[in-house]
Amino acid sequence: MNNVLLISGHPDLKSSHSNATIISEFLKLYKDASVRRLDEMYPDYRIDVKSEQMALVKADIIIWQFPYYWYYMPALLKKWLDDVFTHGFAHGSKGKSLEGKKLIISFTTGASEEEYQHGEAMNFKVEEFLNPFVQTANLCGLQLLKPVYSNGMMYVNGISTEDDLSKIKAKATDHARRLYELVLKQE
Amino acid sequence: MNNVLLISGHPDLKSSHSNATIISEFLKLYKDASVRRLDEMYPDYRIDVKSEQMALVKADIIIWQFPYYWYYMPALLKKWLDDVFTHGFAHGSKGKSLEGKKLIISFTTGASEEEYQHGEAMNFKVEEFLNPFVQTANLCGLQLLKPVYSNGMMYVNGISTEDDLSKIKAKATDHARRLYELVLKQE
Repeated sequence: MNNVLLISGHPDLKSSHSNATIISEFLKLYKDASVRRLDEMYPDYRIDVKSEQMALVKADIIIWQFPYYWYYMPALLKKWLDDVFTHGFAHGSKGKSLEGKKLIISFTTGASEEEYQHGEAMNFKVEEFLNPFVQTANLCGLQLLKPVYSNGMMYVNGISTEDDLSKIKAKATDHARRLYELVLKQE
Repeated sequence: MNNVLLISGHPDLKSSHSNATIISEFLKLYKDASVRRLDEMYPDYRIDVKSEQMALVKADIIIWQFPYYWYYMPALLKKWLDDVFTHGFAHGSKGKSLEGKKLIISFTTGASEEEYQHGEAMNFKVEEFLNPFVQTANLCGLQLLKPVYSNGMMYVNGISTEDDLSKIKAKATDHARRLYELVLKQE
């Protein structure tokens, strides 16, 4: 059984509907996954690099779970990446600690699938924003698996309805199932 | 004369050679630019959103100055972006505060130009990583100008020589000149 490490990059998971549901539903399916909630561990953005690197070394599959902010990961997860993926650990001639491990990016977007098209509000397809992720994985010898994502996951307090919330939670549950199936396929 | 606002996203400008030189040389050429050094202002990553938004409203040209970390901006500048570019200020039907302003991304990469090619270490050209920036500008009605960047700006303490440092500083000075010329062209 693979050692699965899920890094949660949402900066305030308590206020999240989709990311929180994805994580809790995924954990129901894959009980042995380790989850690191960066918002709880590092509210001050001071990452414990050694402890994060130790967790990574033990993992076979690394999942980055986050909401898409400006077509990339949130600052909190970026701080983790900037600090933890050091030269000599994650890359460089002596930095082979992540080589051969698998990486899954699992994320939610506020805008709909229809908006992520040429000529629509987001101007690009979701996949066209992913080159920085692809090359980050490349440089570290990580095998980037097919991304798992869900669009239209926007809940706005005071505007969205109960019905909207139910739909988001159903989509998040389906997202967790897709993530689980992708993880299982690697056995 | 345009009101130029330079946002420095390097997380530790004191330890920087290329970004620090670019900023100081640019200021020699364009004395009236306002510079906000995020590392000095926000070492705790707690951004003063109102004050940043006020500075943005006054600007005609916004420059993001940063070292390329993982083919994107550093976490500190991403925190600024995540916090400051709110719905209702930077985007959304009532968020038009940045519309028509110009944005310049001005950055340095450690790897060389030769490495940023298909089949080489970075696998992509620099421009192929920029879609998130392009669409961030699009969504806010910002006009993204041609990026100004310099490759091969890596200085490693204890490994790089004095000669390496001179070369980096010369390239940084040239970078500042190119940035200045691009700003002047907008008059």
